[in-house]
Parts: sequence; structure tokens; C-alpha cells
Amino acid sequence: MELTPVTDLPEIRPGDDLAELIAERAGDDLESGDVLTVASTVVSKAEGRVADLEEYPVSARAQEIADTIGDLTEEEKDPRFAQAVLEESTELLIDCPFLLTETRFGHINVNAGIDQSNVPGHDLLLLPKRPTKSAERIREGLAEHGYDDIAVIVTDTCGRPFRHGQRGVAIGWAGMPASRDWRGEMDRDGDELEVTVQSVIDELASAANLVTGEGADGVPAVVVSDWEFGDLEGSNELFRSVEDDLVRQALREWDWKGGA
Amino acid sequence: MELTPVTDLPEIRPGDDLAELIAERAGDDLESGDVLTVASTVVSKAEGRVADLEEYPVSARAQEIADTIGDLTEEEKDPRFAQAVLEESTELLIDCPFLLTETRFGHINVNAGIDQSNVPGHDLLLLPKRPTKSAERIREGLAEHGYDDIAVIVTDTCGRPFRHGQRGVAIGWAGMPASRDWRGEMDRDGDELEVTVQSVIDELASAANLVTGEGADGVPAVVVSDWEFGDLEGSNELFRSVEDDLVRQALREWDWKGGA
Repeated sequence: MELTPVTDLPEIRPGDDLAELIAERAGDDLESGDVLTVASTVVSKAEGRVADLEEYPVSARAQEIADTIGDLTEEEKDPRFAQAVLEESTELLIDCPFLLTETRFGHINVNAGIDQSNVPGHDLLLLPKRPTKSAERIREGLAEHGYDDIAVIVTDTCGRPFRHGQRGVAIGWAGMPASRDWRGEMDRDGDELEVTVQSVIDELASAANLVTGEGADGVPAVVVSDWEFGDLEGSNELFRSVEDDLVRQALREWDWKGGA
Repeated sequence: MELTPVTDLPEIRPGDDLAELIAERAGDDLESGDVLTVASTVVSKAEGRVADLEEYPVSARAQEIADTIGDLTEEEKDPRFAQAVLEESTELLIDCPFLLTETRFGHINVNAGIDQSNVPGHDLLLLPKRPTKSAERIREGLAEHGYDDIAVIVTDTCGRPFRHGQRGVAIGWAGMPASRDWRGEMDRDGDELEVTVQSVIDELASAANLVTGEGADGVPAVVVSDWEFGDLEGSNELFRSVEDDLVRQALREWDWKGGA
């Protein structure tokens, strides 16, 4: 398996055709059957998902959230930012000491994944509205530029329970399943494997994040070549529902009380 | 970045020298400065971390856990298995409808990561006792066989909240930090990045898991080449403490009551 960054992409602006910009630079590195990962930041920029704090008139709930976090953490929280997070979300999983929410497309991230850095001329960069649709558009655009059958993954980075640090994850995908289903497969000894479903799009997003970097020389698109999904069954489930997630159930019954 | 599986490793037996077996097969694929990932299953086998259920006399707590899970899920649970999980763990985070525990070295996984497949001649394969020590030994062994300065990561696969499926994670490492610390770094526009710490060892473990496979043709060791940690500060924190983890705090106050 090989990962090759797509270099020299310009700063992306609203309306830019990402597929075209990538196709112009990928050259022979990108071939039919490859996977292309694209960071959600540039997808959002191309889709004009920028916003300013003044666009978010503060609701009572947002004011309450900002006040509570401010009181407990002793750091001022802009209630307009809390309002923006609420408007991007369908459920608040944690409302203090930080906001952990489910976005409208099912992804769970701090602050609904809204970025306050990396957005020239505006206050906020929102996640793409429907990242799987974005991935499909990029896939179709690549085909129009001569790159047939490229699987596309839109990536984000986020933290997680139990382990420190952030890692790359997939939030949208097209041209491949989300997971490999190993159920019923046998191990070397002919015993059925305990592993069930392998989230390959998340693993691809994590792998790509190792070569993208985050800083001034960040490369938002990466080609994954010499890798195959293989013959296993695929699944397109990525985001857990509350019924499938004991941690979400536990968080619904819990309030942070200021420390462990 | 390139990932190359180390092929033709034999079935690993207690006492096998993994560094030697890998060194004999890696050839020119492995070079100074590369990262080598090794699946915990083969590390455990080499270290003799196999066990049989009859070695676990059942405590009252294990019996209670097995009975409760059995009643609620209507699937019989062997109390000796529950006992084995308890003995490998320092804390039970979830005790029903499945066991999620913190192992003695800080890793959180279902059933303390004990594997009931993939272990010829025994009932159970336990995780390595101290995976970072295991990684250090493999790193030293590789140096003795002429492979200097190879970073070694011992990997596991596990599920997670919020997202379906399992992905590769690191449980032990040597020769490199666990994370890149981006705090204070600037983005393209000269603004400070919001991202804080990137868990590169987990991302490397996920990347490797894409090429190892799980089944009869599984390859437990992978060379990562043409990748550099870079000039950023490193951190060796991987496992969150309860104080740093709101989900762990929420789980301490919560009991599963049979559904959402």
C-alpha cells in the first residue's frame, strides 16, 4: 500500500472545482481503483461553508450553555459560537465543560466539527453539509477528468474517549463500502474469527492523516494506491445510533459536575 | 509513505524470537528509520500468553457477571471467562450487556482484549502483559540482527463508541513518541491551529491493519517506510485517565437497564 500526497493545491475558495484541481495535479499517481482522501476543510471551503459569528443570533439555550461553561471553566465562551454549534447539530451529547454533538449527518465531534482556525476572511468553517454527497461529486468530477473508478473519502480529525490525541476519520465516502465484514471468516486454525466489522474508511483516513500534516504546509489530498478492498462483504454503516451505543446511552443520563 | 507486509512468518509458538523471525524475512524492505508494526496476537503467542478456562476458579463477582449477562442477553456466558477478564483488568467500565474493561497496562477493550479464536491448543489468548516492554524487546532484537533504529508498535484491534466497526490501535511502542504535538503551530494563514495532539501511533496501527488482514492469510507484521515523525514535539501519553475522560466518568455512574 502506498500513500502519495497531491501537492501544490492552491488555497481553496468558494466555488472551486476540487475534482478538477486535483485531477490537474495528480498525474500518474492516481489510477483506476485507487482511493483518494480529501480533507473536509478544503471540501467546506469549496462549498462555501464559511460563516461569521454575527450570523448567529443567540438563543436562550446557547446563552445558558455559554454561561455554564464560562462559569465552570473560567474561560469566556462566545454564545454566538454555541449557537452555531447548536444549529449544526441534532443532539448535544455533552454540554459542559465542552460541547460534544451529533452533526446533522451523524458524525460526533467536539463543537460539531466547526473550525475557528484555517478560515481566511471569516470566523468559522463548518463541516460539509452532506459529506457523502461531496465525496460522490468529487468522484464524478474525477471521472469527467479521465480518472475512472476512484473511491473518494472526505476526512475529518477528532478526539475520542479512552485515548489521548486526535486521529483522522472518514465522514463521507463514495465508490467503496465503509467497512469490511469478516463475520464467518476463518482464522489460520479454521476457527471462526471474533472480529466482526473492520472500518476501512476510518483506517484509510487515519493513514492519510499521517502524510497530510496540519500546518502551513498541509496537503489536503492523498492518493492511496496498491490497496484493495478485497472479496469480503461490505457494509455502509458508519455512525452508531443511540440504540447501538452504550456510551451515548450513558451520556444521556449524565451531567458533568465539575470533575472526576 | 509505503506499507509492506512481512510475509511467510510461521505460526508463532511460545519462546519464539519474533525479532529474529522478522529480521530473517524483512530483507531490504526494512531500513533504519522505518516503523514496524506487530500484531499483539503474535507477540502474545511468542510470550506464551495462552491460558485455559480451567485455570480460572470462579469468584462470586465473576459468577454474578456471567449470570446477569446471561439473563439479559439470553446467551450463556462462561463464568470462567468472566473471571479471566477480571484478572486481566483494573477496572470494569461496563459489566453488562458485555464486559468493557481497563487492562492492567491502561488499554480499554471489550473482554480485556482476550481472544478466543486464533489460539491453537488453548482456550484463550491474553494480550501481552506489558506491550511497551514487548515493543522495546523487539526493537532491541532487530538491532542485534542488523536493523538499527526501527520504531516498533504493538497493535490491537478494537471497537469504539460513536462509530461502527473496529480499527487498528497501538497498545505498545518503542523508538518513537506516541503523538505529535501541534500546539502552537500555525496554519497557512498564520493562525494558531486548533488541533492539539495527533495520535500517530494509532494512525500507524490503523494503516497497518489495512494490509494485515485477519483471516487465514493474515500477515501480522508490516513495515512502514518513507514516513517521518518530523520536527514536532512528541508526547508519550496514550491512555486517558478517568480525570481526563468524561465518558469514563459518565460510565462510572451508569448501569445498563436493558436497552435505550
